[in-house]
Amino acid sequence: MRDVAIIGVGANPRWGELWGQSLRDIFVEAALAAIDDAGVDHLDGMYVGCMSSGIFTGQEHLASLMSDYLGQKHIPATRVESACASGGLAVKSAFLEVASGYRDIILAGGVEKMTDVSGGEATFALGTAADGEYEGYHGATFPGLYAMIAKAHMARYGTTHEMLAQVAVKNHANGMLNPMAQYRSEITVQQVLNSVMIAEPLHILDCSPITDGAAAVILCPLDMAKKISKKQPVKIAGVGHATDTIQLAQRPDPTWLESTALAAEAAFKMAGVSRKDIDLYEVHDCFTIAELAVIEALGLVDKGKSGEATLKGRTARTGDIPVNVSGGLKSKGHPVGATGAVQIVELTRQLRGEAGERQIAKARRALAQNMGGSGGSAVVHILEVA
Amino acid sequence: MRDVAIIGVGANPRWGELWGQSLRDIFVEAALAAIDDAGVDHLDGMYVGCMSSGIFTGQEHLASLMSDYLGQKHIPATRVESACASGGLAVKSAFLEVASGYRDIILAGGVEKMTDVSGGEATFALGTAADGEYEGYHGATFPGLYAMIAKAHMARYGTTHEMLAQVAVKNHANGMLNPMAQYRSEITVQQVLNSVMIAEPLHILDCSPITDGAAAVILCPLDMAKKISKKQPVKIAGVGHATDTIQLAQRPDPTWLESTALAAEAAFKMAGVSRKDIDLYEVHDCFTIAELAVIEALGLVDKGKSGEATLKGRTARTGDIPVNVSGGLKSKGHPVGATGAVQIVELTRQLRGEAGERQIAKARRALAQNMGGSGGSAVVHILEVA
Repeated sequence: MRDVAIIGVGANPRWGELWGQSLRDIFVEAALAAIDDAGVDHLDGMYVGCMSSGIFTGQEHLASLMSDYLGQKHIPATRVESACASGGLAVKSAFLEVASGYRDIILAGGVEKMTDVSGGEATFALGTAADGEYEGYHGATFPGLYAMIAKAHMARYGTTHEMLAQVAVKNHANGMLNPMAQYRSEITVQQVLNSVMIAEPLHILDCSPITDGAAAVILCPLDMAKKISKKQPVKIAGVGHATDTIQLAQRPDPTWLESTALAAEAAFKMAGVSRKDIDLYEVHDCFTIAELAVIEALGLVDKGKSGEATLKGRTARTGDIPVNVSGGLKSKGHPVGATGAVQIVELTRQLRGEAGERQIAKARRALAQNMGGSGGSAVVHILEVA
Repeated sequence: MRDVAIIGVGANPRWGELWGQSLRDIFVEAALAAIDDAGVDHLDGMYVGCMSSGIFTGQEHLASLMSDYLGQKHIPATRVESACASGGLAVKSAFLEVASGYRDIILAGGVEKMTDVSGGEATFALGTAADGEYEGYHGATFPGLYAMIAKAHMARYGTTHEMLAQVAVKNHANGMLNPMAQYRSEITVQQVLNSVMIAEPLHILDCSPITDGAAAVILCPLDMAKKISKKQPVKIAGVGHATDTIQLAQRPDPTWLESTALAAEAAFKMAGVSRKDIDLYEVHDCFTIAELAVIEALGLVDKGKSGEATLKGRTARTGDIPVNVSGGLKSKGHPVGATGAVQIVELTRQLRGEAGERQIAKARRALAQNMGGSGGSAVVHILEVA
């Protein structure tokens, strides 16, 4: 396998309710930003991560649509989907294409246009990430599924509402420093606890929002990156990917995200590094409980200790294991197909020292964890300064 | 890049209106058949090609669903989509993963469950392969788009209704010899011309049907295949993939499928062979005009000469360039996400000498062409006896 580097990253200036832009506009804006950042004059191929453009906008075949509207018709292009892990999988797919030696300069992006439908329709669309016959048909929605994870975590480990709320408080504080964040507003634990209940114990401020947005990265062989890139190349040192039962109810322990644990294990093994070598993390905080379960599955804290670690500030920007310095899905927004891609954008900026006010000093190596459904799929990337 | 071989293939016993089986049942049946054929005891990963399970069945996240229901939870799995080229792209994606050296034994399958919705809903779902804003919104459907290609071909080259009809007659004759074909019935040119008009000049017997079905292949490194496979390994010698404008109206010549021409050029270059080295072809005959345009874009006949070549029997099973010996999409059926995968199943069976009554004698090398939309994407594979 060839070593692979990231040489360009881009996203929309700000994520949110982008009513003035269509699905294609949003993607092309992010892709052009990445191409500009990389300084390349062509692409050899493209991957587009998108969860459900069919239901959200009545448009499939994004491979053709997006390469065409990007002015790159004729290049090979592929859409990949794994619910909310679609963006991370676009990056993995591009990594494999470059690593294989088949093609050299590949764009991997993610996009979702979610606000052109009603809230009920969006809930239906998102619900297609669950098992339609055994979860969706019986009325389970994602707030409901994650609420069940939260209840189990509270019952088993004594996790409190305040611990959950602190995840949101931390990520909003981080998002204040990120110009692209949908919600740049500080919140308090009390505000989270007073906010409307969505699915007990999750209040609305425990939930990531509905968002329009896109993000893109450009990959090429590391050798080529060292020659052509004007910026610090970032190497993709580890790639891990795994699945789990699509149904939450079929897992032996609903609080344990086995797909994330397996993907992390594979990525660490490939990179030849351990947790102590990682300077910061971007993880999938679609709900506050998700961030807690993820940092346990990644092995950053012991099982059941994630709430306490969060309350103590260990995962804050200034803590010893900074998690979601970008603001995470909670503050930055969660256009489901784009989330995994923007994690790589954020970490690349951090490793290049371009993260402005939220820069983590001396960041040399970072990990991104992106997942689909209630943990039915997960992809982990480890990036390092090349 | 490592050389890659096909060591197992499978599909449902017969395609059609499979009302007794759900989306997952159909895929798992085909995947298990491929695993059984390969004789492997595990998979290292999986790709699922599917166009629009979200709209057809309210289910996304097939990566998790299908690996789970196949009894393979925890393996990396990815769904890929490029409209009706989704199945072919699943094979390309699996090829890249094995060629890269990242993982060894990968299943690539395609599936579509199309008959659980009304005809109107199916037409809408299929229409999402076109440009929603500039084609779909104005009422263009796929029969309409291909009818425009046909009218242009007739006007420019003198192609006749009879020439179009002969494609359907030939493919139904071939399908008579294929136990899995949805329509195992001989038809005549007169029957095609007398059948109900869908979009002038395309009659209903010029159109491929709505179908439920799945197909799967298993890939591994060629070196490994020679050690573990009890059957003749089939090498993937060439892989080509390209896109074109998603809108038919934006192409300089609506009768010319540039994405197919580019994908074929790349595949021939990679395989180091030319058209005279290919013993048979499976191509994307979603409408009779599609097969004519494709064999021109592949360079099998001169521009404008495809109708004449078909009338002369050159593309018949007994002709000098056998095309769609399986019965093609027309007779075998067209579950859109599965079509590209079953082309590889058919050609593997032919190259192994397992094609029964429709066996092409001494078949050593074969080409599959699969496309999305009105030609907005295309993927070409060249297979050969290893």
